[in-house]
Amino acid sequence: MSLLAVGSIAFDAVRTPFGERARMLGGSAVHFALAASFFTEVSVVGPVGDDFGDAEYDVLTTRGVRTDDIEHVDGGKTFFWRGHYDYDLNVAHTDDTQLNVFGDFEPKLSDHSRGSESVFLANIQPDLQLGVRQQCNAASLVGLDSMNLWIDTARESLRRAIGAVDLVLMNDAELRMLTEQPNLVRAARDVMAMGPRMVVAKQGEYGAALFTEESFFALPGYPLEEVVDPTGAGDSFAGGFLGYLDAIGPEAVDDQALRRAMTYGSVMASFNVERFGTERVQSLTHGEVNRRFEEFKVITHLEAVPLELRVFG
Amino acid sequence: MSLLAVGSIAFDAVRTPFGERARMLGGSAVHFALAASFFTEVSVVGPVGDDFGDAEYDVLTTRGVRTDDIEHVDGGKTFFWRGHYDYDLNVAHTDDTQLNVFGDFEPKLSDHSRGSESVFLANIQPDLQLGVRQQCNAASLVGLDSMNLWIDTARESLRRAIGAVDLVLMNDAELRMLTEQPNLVRAARDVMAMGPRMVVAKQGEYGAALFTEESFFALPGYPLEEVVDPTGAGDSFAGGFLGYLDAIGPEAVDDQALRRAMTYGSVMASFNVERFGTERVQSLTHGEVNRRFEEFKVITHLEAVPLELRVFG
Repeated sequence: MSLLAVGSIAFDAVRTPFGERARMLGGSAVHFALAASFFTEVSVVGPVGDDFGDAEYDVLTTRGVRTDDIEHVDGGKTFFWRGHYDYDLNVAHTDDTQLNVFGDFEPKLSDHSRGSESVFLANIQPDLQLGVRQQCNAASLVGLDSMNLWIDTARESLRRAIGAVDLVLMNDAELRMLTEQPNLVRAARDVMAMGPRMVVAKQGEYGAALFTEESFFALPGYPLEEVVDPTGAGDSFAGGFLGYLDAIGPEAVDDQALRRAMTYGSVMASFNVERFGTERVQSLTHGEVNRRFEEFKVITHLEAVPLELRVFG
Repeated sequence: MSLLAVGSIAFDAVRTPFGERARMLGGSAVHFALAASFFTEVSVVGPVGDDFGDAEYDVLTTRGVRTDDIEHVDGGKTFFWRGHYDYDLNVAHTDDTQLNVFGDFEPKLSDHSRGSESVFLANIQPDLQLGVRQQCNAASLVGLDSMNLWIDTARESLRRAIGAVDLVLMNDAELRMLTEQPNLVRAARDVMAMGPRMVVAKQGEYGAALFTEESFFALPGYPLEEVVDPTGAGDSFAGGFLGYLDAIGPEAVDDQALRRAMTYGSVMASFNVERFGTERVQSLTHGEVNRRFEEFKVITHLEAVPLELRVFG
């Protein structure tokens, strides 16, 4: 199978209570692709400028990510984001955004990308998301992320894009904002009524919840003693989730497979935040991924009540 | 076994987006006792005034709660709280607090209460909590709740009280505030360093997490489509948790028993919020409790990855 990621490729400057980085590789498509690369073949579509060099390409190609569809804009500069986090690591404070080549981004897909079985539409303008979706006729699983900016400024476009995908991954505040529905269960159902058959509510340190027509599943966050840099956690989650599902193929996707995808998503997000940017994922091994999956099983394991310990009938 | 609850007995006036009640039975000891009554024998210690009549006693005695130690203060008025919730049901807004007889409360324990095997010290002034703890020499399991007010105004007293109990149940913001530690894992460990062997972090709609020396367990909130009134959810959780553990007795308490206690706590909290005040719990049946426990098992169930669906070594 193969998986396509369309989104931002960036340089980030990030300061947290645990340190800072003046310039490091980032962007939604990058975090997604690195996480997904542990499961399947990933291609990245997104624009970069002259400042995006071999060192950055190497981070992706070392993990087997296909970079053929990364668009080099001559004379341009790569998208740049500067932000910081205070002790509440759930809230990113943006200090500077320079869209640069990302400002005029129009996704151009090669034949190979258009033939992808799975697609992740990272958080970009929703009309662009819809355009990519419509080009990917072979895709049987398309996921979409978005943000409050598009809910505010392009709500109808966003609804159209959502109507064309299988899966929406957004944080729970955004799901509530999009549907104007304070109850998360109802908000998720309202999103499914727009078209998607699955909704993932990302809940930061509290984990994530999966809503489908037939089922509900929730997974706590991994209990980390030190969250160094939350940037990219949501995209890493999406990478683990869609990467696993793409790898096993559509015939194998059932309720338990979706739960495993949720868990792999949580595993990848939990590693992502342990260090700045992509640093942790660059040194990550399959063995570590496996072990953390098993830890999630232990953390959430609940046995039935033994008969002798039932206290009522 | 037997379980003692020391805390407030109140009349509440509550308004939420789903309706309001001008005056209904409430208070931490009441919500706790009604929830715990599904599992074990509970006694309530707390003060009431002349306005607390047969109708209120009946709510407790109908569920088998012992009311002998409820202290009737002649000429007094029962504690009264008025508050409201907006669409963010995680945040209670207090509009009026009349301590009344609760302002001079000094817990008086009968011999029966002093002999309780398990004790819940609901959210009252921490020196009073410590005094009760010291009277209950037979208790092998003592839990304590508190709030930001006591962290602000009586931190050293609270630390002493915490040092004398087995279990702290507080919401995660309070645990962070108490320990001045933004990371919840570290905050829980800091609380255990004060004495308790267990910490439960209550996380509202996101569920709850249990920390012990050896183990971590987290359970999502039950996915309710309608939360009518969150008042008393935390005390109902504590009632299910301690009620179950008291019922099975200290010899049967192991890691899996604690996980079941967490689940019964979540079950009781989820029912509590479905209607105003104690209304839902008054009509609740053991069958409903059982079924929701099973639903939690389904919601959180995660199987191992079948060999043929492993995508890496």
